[in-house]
Amino acid sequence: MNSVAIVGVGLIGGSFALALRSAGFSGKIVGVSSHPAIREALELNIIDSAEPLDKAVPQADLVYLAQPIGRILDTLHHLEPLVRPDALVTDAGSTKQAIVSTARATLRSCQFLGGHPLAGKEIRGAAAADADLFRGRPYVLTPAHPDDLRTPAAAAFLEVIRNIGAHRVVLGAEEHDRLVAFSSHVPQLASTALAAAIAEHSPESSRVAGPGLLDTTRLALSSYDLWRDIVATNTVEIEDALTAYIQKLEYLRENLRTRQLQEEFATAAKYARTLRGS
Amino acid sequence: MNSVAIVGVGLIGGSFALALRSAGFSGKIVGVSSHPAIREALELNIIDSAEPLDKAVPQADLVYLAQPIGRILDTLHHLEPLVRPDALVTDAGSTKQAIVSTARATLRSCQFLGGHPLAGKEIRGAAAADADLFRGRPYVLTPAHPDDLRTPAAAAFLEVIRNIGAHRVVLGAEEHDRLVAFSSHVPQLASTALAAAIAEHSPESSRVAGPGLLDTTRLALSSYDLWRDIVATNTVEIEDALTAYIQKLEYLRENLRTRQLQEEFATAAKYARTLRGS
Repeated sequence: MNSVAIVGVGLIGGSFALALRSAGFSGKIVGVSSHPAIREALELNIIDSAEPLDKAVPQADLVYLAQPIGRILDTLHHLEPLVRPDALVTDAGSTKQAIVSTARATLRSCQFLGGHPLAGKEIRGAAAADADLFRGRPYVLTPAHPDDLRTPAAAAFLEVIRNIGAHRVVLGAEEHDRLVAFSSHVPQLASTALAAAIAEHSPESSRVAGPGLLDTTRLALSSYDLWRDIVATNTVEIEDALTAYIQKLEYLRENLRTRQLQEEFATAAKYARTLRGS
Repeated sequence: MNSVAIVGVGLIGGSFALALRSAGFSGKIVGVSSHPAIREALELNIIDSAEPLDKAVPQADLVYLAQPIGRILDTLHHLEPLVRPDALVTDAGSTKQAIVSTARATLRSCQFLGGHPLAGKEIRGAAAADADLFRGRPYVLTPAHPDDLRTPAAAAFLEVIRNIGAHRVVLGAEEHDRLVAFSSHVPQLASTALAAAIAEHSPESSRVAGPGLLDTTRLALSSYDLWRDIVATNTVEIEDALTAYIQKLEYLRENLRTRQLQEEFATAAKYARTLRGS
């Protein structure tokens, strides 16, 4: 792998560039992004150079799509005449079914492998990029067939994932979208709903805000721009997961004074410990 | 102020002792607690000595009740024959109406001032005590009358609050309980419900857990033992606040594909920034 094109040099694209370098990649890292993002990424030495898509992609062994989902879907429609046959195109989009099926329909000259690093911050942009963003985090890959992970291009990319400290999780695109509805999309909406409900019903509660409220409202700082696309491409799974969450809250409300509340606390604490690997 | 009795030497009581020392208090700190808690607190030099309640309280200028709420209510029934007339009794309970009204009914020989430091961790016990736990945090006081803050004993305690780095917030007990239903009790139940719902409906989501899920499920690690009393002494306010939260979640679910979602994200992000003082 000698040349990487990073399309969308924001938090994820910028962090991937820094992580690549930090892992010893000595090839060329070319950024494709908006003018302000490119200027920032060049100033911070996150990328070596900037090119438009039609100049960057024909040089690249690895094309890394790190834009918002809607923009990734757009970009996929332009890649076919540009890619090298031995290149790998991958993406970092937060939902996978829409991207994987669009890639299948549009990209035939080289391999596509869907990806999703479970890493992020509530802040956007390359200025927040961090070489350690992926360290210790799951990195989901959604190959159409298991053999897709055994091609030379995919094998090189899997080595990159290992080298940047992430651990690979292989899932079907549909399974991915169902699992992240619970692990990522409902937590976001739970946090947004919490901050919005307090703002509407009890704004003076900010006078008695403790550390727990800060934790549970951190995700509420997230930008809607990213979430519009996530919600639009995973609506049904999010509706179902939100319904399960709402039903659980209703159950807690009905059982505030019963032993069932204790059981729910025990179940929740056990699962929260599992999430922390203990 | 020469002698402080801390009743309940767990996370909050232990942290209050360490913060007192760190702020320059050179008097005696006596712990009243269970055998294991006392042993731990003595080993960690959190308290100077341990006494039973009926020995510790008659020596104390300040009696600091840092037990779970139900235990504070019990202790209040035993203090009247023990307290010095110039002492101040205060507490660190997470709800205030039940405690304040019990104190009014049981304690007539000295002043009582309800308190609630908005500080905490998901871990219990003196081993987690931290001299900086209260720094930068609200410390609620619920005087029955404004004059209650102007007595010599209260003035000395207000100085302690300032010295340990907390900022005082004066509220009525009822107002406190309404505000914390939103700022503390609903966030706890939101986190518990989230972890419990995922455990029940999609446990494999742990394979794709990102930092957002860790933030939003941190409170789910909390012990039910403390929450039983909180829920029992603030049931109506919690039911109302939970209902407002559930309605907001339902509204988001119904508006996943409309512009209303964008407005809710904006409201939530603005309030989340306010909570962070920006």
